[in-house]
Formats: sequence, C-alpha cells, structure tokens
Amino acid sequence: MNDLSPLRDPRAQRHEEQRRRILDAAIVCFARGGFHATGMQAVCAEAGMSPGALYRYFPSKDAIIEAIVERDRADIPQLLSPLLEADDVVGALIESARAFLVGNLRPDSLPLFPELYAEAVRNPAVAEIFGRCDDEVGEIVVRVIERGMALGQIDASLDAREAVRFLMALTDGVLMRILLEPAAEIEGLMPMYERSVRRFLAPGASS
Amino acid sequence: MNDLSPLRDPRAQRHEEQRRRILDAAIVCFARGGFHATGMQAVCAEAGMSPGALYRYFPSKDAIIEAIVERDRADIPQLLSPLLEADDVVGALIESARAFLVGNLRPDSLPLFPELYAEAVRNPAVAEIFGRCDDEVGEIVVRVIERGMALGQIDASLDAREAVRFLMALTDGVLMRILLEPAAEIEGLMPMYERSVRRFLAPGASS
Repeated sequence: MNDLSPLRDPRAQRHEEQRRRILDAAIVCFARGGFHATGMQAVCAEAGMSPGALYRYFPSKDAIIEAIVERDRADIPQLLSPLLEADDVVGALIESARAFLVGNLRPDSLPLFPELYAEAVRNPAVAEIFGRCDDEVGEIVVRVIERGMALGQIDASLDAREAVRFLMALTDGVLMRILLEPAAEIEGLMPMYERSVRRFLAPGASS
Repeated sequence: MNDLSPLRDPRAQRHEEQRRRILDAAIVCFARGGFHATGMQAVCAEAGMSPGALYRYFPSKDAIIEAIVERDRADIPQLLSPLLEADDVVGALIESARAFLVGNLRPDSLPLFPELYAEAVRNPAVAEIFGRCDDEVGEIVVRVIERGMALGQIDASLDAREAVRFLMALTDGVLMRILLEPAAEIEGLMPMYERSVRRFLAPGASS
C-alpha cells in the first residue's frame, strides 16, 4: 500500500486510487471464484467500471495478479529490514513471522493464499512473479540467519539457505492450516511455532 | 487404491476399474485447469466416456472430488498404524512423514494439492471431506504423540493436540514449498524437517 507516499499531482493520485480500487475488487472476485474461473468482466462489475476504463489500468488478468503480488510484496522489505539490526536475532525473526501471519489473517484476502499457490503451479507468469517475491524475502532472511550465526545465536553448522527455505515452508504451512481448519487459531499455533523455530535454530545439542 | 482387494465378481471389478479410470482422468483435468474451471465435459473427454456413462458412476463434480480425497485417504491409516507400535516413536513419525511427502511427489497429482486447499476454502462440501480426512489423521497422530510422551521420548508438557496441528502444518508447508520453488528438493528439506521435528518434540531443555 502506498497510502503514505505523497502524490501531489491530482492526476497521479487519481490514477493510484483507481488502480487500488481495481485491485481490491479483483481480490474479492478471485477469493470468491479463483483466478482461473474469474473473468475480467466480473472484476469490472465488482469495481463498478467499464471494461474500457479498466483496461486502461490493466491490460490483462495476469497484469492484475502481478500487481496484487507486487502490492503485497511492497510491505515485506520494510517488515524484514529491522531484523538486520536486531540484538536478539531469533526473537526478532519470530516477531516478524507473527506480524506476517497476523497481517495475512484478513478474512477477505485469506482465501487468496492457496489460490495463489495453485495458480503459480499452473501459470508460468504467476510462478515467475511469485518466485521473484520469494527470492527477495529469502535473500534477506539468509542474511539475517548468517548474522545470527556470526553472533553465536544460531547454529553455524546449519546450511543457511536450506534452513531459510524450511522456515518459509513452516510459516506458509501454519498460515495454510489456520485457513483450512476451523479449530486452528494463531494463539494456539504461535507457541508451537516459537518453540519449533527457537529449538531448530539453537546452537549445540545433537540434531 | 484397492489394487489388492480381491474382487472376484467381474461386474464389481469392471465397476471398480471404470471408477478408477474416471478419477485418474479427473485428476489430470483438475491439475491442469483447477476444480472450479473444469467441467464434467472435460473429465468425460479425458476419460474417453460419454456423459451418460460417467454420470452412472459420479452424479456430480463434488462426488468426484470426494472420491479423490477418499482414495488418497484410504492409504493413510495403513501408513500411520505402525506408529502405534514403534520402539522409536519420533523416528517412526519422521519416516512416515517422509513416505507421505515422497508419495505425494508424483508430477501428475502434485498440482492438485494447493488446488484442494483453495477449493476447501471456497466450497463447504470439499471443506467437509477435507476436514474428515484431517481429523482421522490427527486422531492417530495424537495417540502416537501421547504414547511417545508415556515412553519418555516426547516432552510430556506439550499440548498434544496443538503439537499435532503444528506438525501437520509443517508437513503440508514442506510439500507446498517443493511444489512451488523449483530449487527446493526433498533431499535438501528432509534433514531440516528431521532436525526440526526431533528438537521440537524432545523432552527437557527450555523451549
């Protein structure tokens, strides 16, 4: 979200507002019916815009999907950068995962998460966007882990890249589980998550 | 799969074969286009059957989805029951997770996994099937964990139900990651998975 960026030019501001309106409408449609089954027509109806007006902002459904992922991604470096200066690296890592999980638990956009996965498997264009986002997050977390190793807070014998891949799998798995199982709650899973991440990363003791 | 069950009645055997043929065709179609966007017509074409013939076996798309999940589920109790007699409970748990992961890494059915999640979020009928399967697996693993606690191999202070929920999230997350990230491999993630599960369940040491 670019709510805080000063857009003084009224035309640019209007453009930004219209884009946001389309993306919000598209999220509602995609969450309801899936990417694959949702036509641009449905997005137009939800946004209350004519196809001609909408196509001026987004020439295709893939362009909308790309913009949704990009918008989500815009928050991530900001969320992760404090990790590179934290005193307690593991604690900060867990806090940012909690913020990511809680931030994703909005009922309107939540169903989009597995949908994005499913579409990434089918659609190379979405896979490419997803992959870029993933790499960007992964690179930052690898640096965080390596810093934790240098500080003696994280087991230096771990393969940092595989460990990060695993932590990302774990975090996505928890989000997916909350989505799927009505009885699963972030409050119940978070202590498990924290115990698991702390013990996984801890130096010493046999694995 | 019921390959081993003796179906001596040729008509019953034929019925079973036709059902299997339809389900295999449906998996190909669903993996390609998603549940939502795939019509019964496409499944008929893939199976090489007329709609009339196919409807004799499955009256609706939901009935096909249900049968796919049921078929997958049929293997699970068999996969998990040895856990209830294992000497090394945690080792056996990790081995059965490995078998589950490797068994799911068939290129044809793999894309179905996030698709099932996405559909379960949208479609209450699929959510109900999914939930039943999930509960059945969860019940067995809770008993395994409690047995490990009684044997002193697993931290008895853990909430068994939340721990199992977490382990299921973790396992699904690893499967999803392999699906999504071309560089992710089961060989790279399995040592991380094993380290994580062993340390997570281990008695003693502060969490």
